[in-house]
Amino acid sequence: MAEQRTIILDCDPGHDDAVAIMLALGNPGIELLGLTTVGGNQTLEKVTRNAQSVLVMCGRDDVPVHPGASRPLLRPVEVAEGIHGDSGLDGVELPEPTRPVASPHGVQFIVDTVMGAEPGAITLVATGPLTNLALAARLEPRIVERVREVVVMGGGYHEGNWTAVAEFNIWVDPEAASIVFDEEWPLTMVGLDLTHQALATEEVERQVAEIGSDLGEFFIGLMAFFRQAYRENQGFDDPPVHDPCTVAYLIDPAVVATRKAPLVVELHGEHTKGMTVADFRAPAPDDCRHQVATELDRDAFWRMVVESIRVLSVADERR
Amino acid sequence: MAEQRTIILDCDPGHDDAVAIMLALGNPGIELLGLTTVGGNQTLEKVTRNAQSVLVMCGRDDVPVHPGASRPLLRPVEVAEGIHGDSGLDGVELPEPTRPVASPHGVQFIVDTVMGAEPGAITLVATGPLTNLALAARLEPRIVERVREVVVMGGGYHEGNWTAVAEFNIWVDPEAASIVFDEEWPLTMVGLDLTHQALATEEVERQVAEIGSDLGEFFIGLMAFFRQAYRENQGFDDPPVHDPCTVAYLIDPAVVATRKAPLVVELHGEHTKGMTVADFRAPAPDDCRHQVATELDRDAFWRMVVESIRVLSVADERR
Amino acid sequence: MAEQRTIILDCDPGHDDAVAIMLALGNPGIELLGLTTVGGNQTLEKVTRNAQSVLVMCGRDDVPVHPGASRPLLRPVEVAEGIHGDSGLDGVELPEPTRPVASPHGVQFIVDTVMGAEPGAITLVATGPLTNLALAARLEPRIVERVREVVVMGGGYHEGNWTAVAEFNIWVDPEAASIVFDEEWPLTMVGLDLTHQALATEEVERQVAEIGSDLGEFFIGLMAFFRQAYRENQGFDDPPVHDPCTVAYLIDPAVVATRKAPLVVELHGEHTKGMTVADFRAPAPDDCRHQVATELDRDAFWRMVVESIRVLSVADERR
Amino acid sequence: MAEQRTIILDCDPGHDDAVAIMLALGNPGIELLGLTTVGGNQTLEKVTRNAQSVLVMCGRDDVPVHPGASRPLLRPVEVAEGIHGDSGLDGVELPEPTRPVASPHGVQFIVDTVMGAEPGAITLVATGPLTNLALAARLEPRIVERVREVVVMGGGYHEGNWTAVAEFNIWVDPEAASIVFDEEWPLTMVGLDLTHQALATEEVERQVAEIGSDLGEFFIGLMAFFRQAYRENQGFDDPPVHDPCTVAYLIDPAVVATRKAPLVVELHGEHTKGMTVADFRAPAPDDCRHQVATELDRDAFWRMVVESIRVLSVADERR
Repeated sequence: MAEQRTIILDCDPGHDDAVAIMLALGNPGIELLGLTTVGGNQTLEKVTRNAQSVLVMCGRDDVPVHPGASRPLLRPVEVAEGIHGDSGLDGVELPEPTRPVASPHGVQFIVDTVMGAEPGAITLVATGPLTNLALAARLEPRIVERVREVVVMGGGYHEGNWTAVAEFNIWVDPEAASIVFDEEWPLTMVGLDLTHQALATEEVERQVAEIGSDLGEFFIGLMAFFRQAYRENQGFDDPPVHDPCTVAYLIDPAVVATRKAPLVVELHGEHTKGMTVADFRAPAPDDCRHQVATELDRDAFWRMVVESIRVLSVADERR
Repeated sequence: MAEQRTIILDCDPGHDDAVAIMLALGNPGIELLGLTTVGGNQTLEKVTRNAQSVLVMCGRDDVPVHPGASRPLLRPVEVAEGIHGDSGLDGVELPEPTRPVASPHGVQFIVDTVMGAEPGAITLVATGPLTNLALAARLEPRIVERVREVVVMGGGYHEGNWTAVAEFNIWVDPEAASIVFDEEWPLTMVGLDLTHQALATEEVERQVAEIGSDLGEFFIGLMAFFRQAYRENQGFDDPPVHDPCTVAYLIDPAVVATRKAPLVVELHGEHTKGMTVADFRAPAPDDCRHQVATELDRDAFWRMVVESIRVLSVADERR
Repeated sequence: MAEQRTIILDCDPGHDDAVAIMLALGNPGIELLGLTTVGGNQTLEKVTRNAQSVLVMCGRDDVPVHPGASRPLLRPVEVAEGIHGDSGLDGVELPEPTRPVASPHGVQFIVDTVMGAEPGAITLVATGPLTNLALAARLEPRIVERVREVVVMGGGYHEGNWTAVAEFNIWVDPEAASIVFDEEWPLTMVGLDLTHQALATEEVERQVAEIGSDLGEFFIGLMAFFRQAYRENQGFDDPPVHDPCTVAYLIDPAVVATRKAPLVVELHGEHTKGMTVADFRAPAPDDCRHQVATELDRDAFWRMVVESIRVLSVADERR
Repeated sequence: MAEQRTIILDCDPGHDDAVAIMLALGNPGIELLGLTTVGGNQTLEKVTRNAQSVLVMCGRDDVPVHPGASRPLLRPVEVAEGIHGDSGLDGVELPEPTRPVASPHGVQFIVDTVMGAEPGAITLVATGPLTNLALAARLEPRIVERVREVVVMGGGYHEGNWTAVAEFNIWVDPEAASIVFDEEWPLTMVGLDLTHQALATEEVERQVAEIGSDLGEFFIGLMAFFRQAYRENQGFDDPPVHDPCTVAYLIDPAVVATRKAPLVVELHGEHTKGMTVADFRAPAPDDCRHQVATELDRDAFWRMVVESIRVLSVADERR
């Protein structure tokens, strides 16, 4: 276990974003200051509402939700309806939000939070397109040296999903990704190479079912839809639950093996636009700020996730 | 003469930006709500201070200066030191600013001003790279339908300066330019085709000299440096004073002939990156939101500029 | 008048290619060694047959026709059926070829002819996509220093037709164009800026009608179709007869004003692919190998064309 | 073992090309009709001479060497001097060629050989940049359906050497590679993923030394230089001997495991130009014409190579 990490989670829930939120809330290794949302898996309006609903399900509507960018910097809006459904969180009934969304704008929340904290205090975790982080870095460049680390679910060094070599979050806003990857903060890319190992098997669902809680049922409903979507769209038997891998890495780096490698985002290719290009030809230089996630300790990862759902379920009963 | 136009001037002074400020302040056709600054002709720090100094020279330090973006969205910082010198306003002695810069950030000032005014009330005039306008449009998309018009000094349909087919302001941040050109607001491009007609001849300088004011001397000092820089760098006899053409167009559209044509910014070319591509092959469709400036009434333009210097000089004497 | 020029005409007839052939055959300033054909305005098969038919109409089936490349280097085949019709030469009845096509392949014919002649003896005139010339330069690099000049109908420095800034011949095979423009031979680009001045007016047709020959009728039939096609597709009243401008330039350079300027072909732009980028920012360097055609002496040009039709008609009668 | 394959070997010797020639000449599974050469590892002049010298060393100067293209289609010439030395075959003394180079041009030899043989008779093996094959396909499109298979040493689906994701042969002439990959012939890409498994260990050299022949010494001299070059330039302990893997695949497909996957060559990326993009997201469609080499049976491969050197050595002694 590592020390506790204080994070802002920039997300676009999204089935796997929902699990990332559960893990961040249910594990003592994470202090979650707030959620910022970004158009991605579905429209900003939908994913913001989904974020609120997930917080209600987790009994944690005290966590603020700051809506951010509704569209990519340059590309048109493109959502992943085939994977996440019309609501962005299909497969379950979503509770009404109990509180309004928070002010200010998500980008300003990131800027204010980082500038208001001690240097090195805040880690930014991004599980959607990187539009908000890019805008924050351009609005207030001083955040870059104050952020402890940026952990991104996105990209892949040998795998793609939206194209042969590009992953959805990067593909949707490659220019934002390029801004974030090129800035001088430490960045960990938790890409498809890693997250395709995080499959929600039936055994996982069985363990969650044993908890016997509403939140557990919620998780199971999400996974049922997610499994079907991944079967039909990408030929997976069990769905890869990408986003919580970022949080798991922060909770316990031993769960996610990493390797240093220089990374750039391709913006101009015909067949490679949105690819995260890693250079493995030589050992990374000492001052390399990039690392990629390579191997997941599947058992440890799912233990964490199941445990977080259990913790949140028990807390909920107590209320 | 047209009705009065209420504007924010987004600028990077810069010799010709300085003249644009004079024209905006000295002509009753313009209400100038504030300046926002952007790294361009020189660094953000320098152009911001230059903006303050020009306001002091004009006796108008009441106009707020809101610093904006210090760097382009994607490209590295590139300044036009060969044209504007080390200070960004070489050739004159710059008075110390008499007031601090204003809050909030330039991008937020644009958002707040547009959202706080009536729809259609505000015109945005940009005489530097378009980074601030692009960030504003992404932070608060609702400004787009509320802005009356965007008037850009930048680009060119048949002329380039920084490359064979790209102009400096667009070249420096083509992605920002692409965002601004692609949004649904009416946009007038006052490009090199027009501004290369706005040459500050010795006759113009003679007329300004006759005013016999400090501001007149300031203008003459600026033009002397500017002439020399353009002679050495771009082979001009007299320097093209680009930026005030935008303001002149707003004061009296009869001074700047325009033509409708669809415009896009090239982001991916090897030889054409940053080019503003105009399509003149057919009459522009009725709903075309783009127009390009084609022909300048030189005499009327310079009369306006000289008169604005005279008006500001007299006002200054009265104090 | 200039000295006689010995040429190979690489073409894709095409209405205006047909006129180029007439001008080359009917004017004593040109020695035409042969035609090579290239897929362009229509498929290679069709334009090759059209070339043969035009030679028959001109009474010159002794001129060899060497078929060349059937497709561009990289891009898929794209023909200009809207401009030239299904046959590539719609609007007239085409006589059957009287001789078979010649061996060897058009590319090899270019190589063999240039290598077999004195250095500086041969001029290559290209009025279609530049695939054949590019292949010849790559198969036998030594032709480059032996060719006297390459004269290309294609491109434009301020005008486009197939896109806002690209002309058909370059657009169809931009990589071939890039090879040809980048080689070290002198190259004259007769682009749309010039050829849009070469309009076949009704007065021109009247003059040709007065000749009273089959070839004259053939020309008039071609122009009637061409006028209609340009009206419907590109909004012209009279059709621009592009290709013979190259031959006219060789017959009498005074008919086609030119200007030196470095040229490159854009291969990577989203909006500018296939653009011929000219750099007019400074006087061209002394060793600049590129020039662009700027202004046509319309009267002299059409006098040449009409006279060539007259000469060929008289020769035909004599047989 | 498979049936005998009749091949043309298009190469740029090059240390590993030399080994490919030895394998093709020394193994009964291959009938080698001729070598065509292409500028790549070194200039065309040098690699052509090297091809001749290798044939002399193998006692097979009867095999014709047809020089082909001296430069890539679009990119400037770039040689791999750091890997292959100034001669292209540094580390050994090269015997003088005993016969002149053959006519016609390498591209024409490919065209003539394929068109003169039965459909499906000829396999093209390319171990250098793909310029010759691309030119042949454009000069005579009918070869495409007559070629049995194209086997390319080049590219990589997860590995690069000249850039993070591009291999030298493809990088040097990506447009030619794109032409060859896009044509409708069956194509097997033997890329770095495979060839980085073909390491010439000291054990391999020991086995060759035991043969006790001049050719064996020649091989050992080549590998000594090659090892040093790869150590200094790419951090390998033992040098990867890329090119003979293509020939080994033809001799016995069991030695080189393959997988079907659609392939395209990226031409426009900033970081990915020259990348061979493989799409592994789904099972390849039945009509997929592309396959990539994935796993090498190292022992079987080196047994083949050593045996071919032995066979050629014995044959040489007999003369």
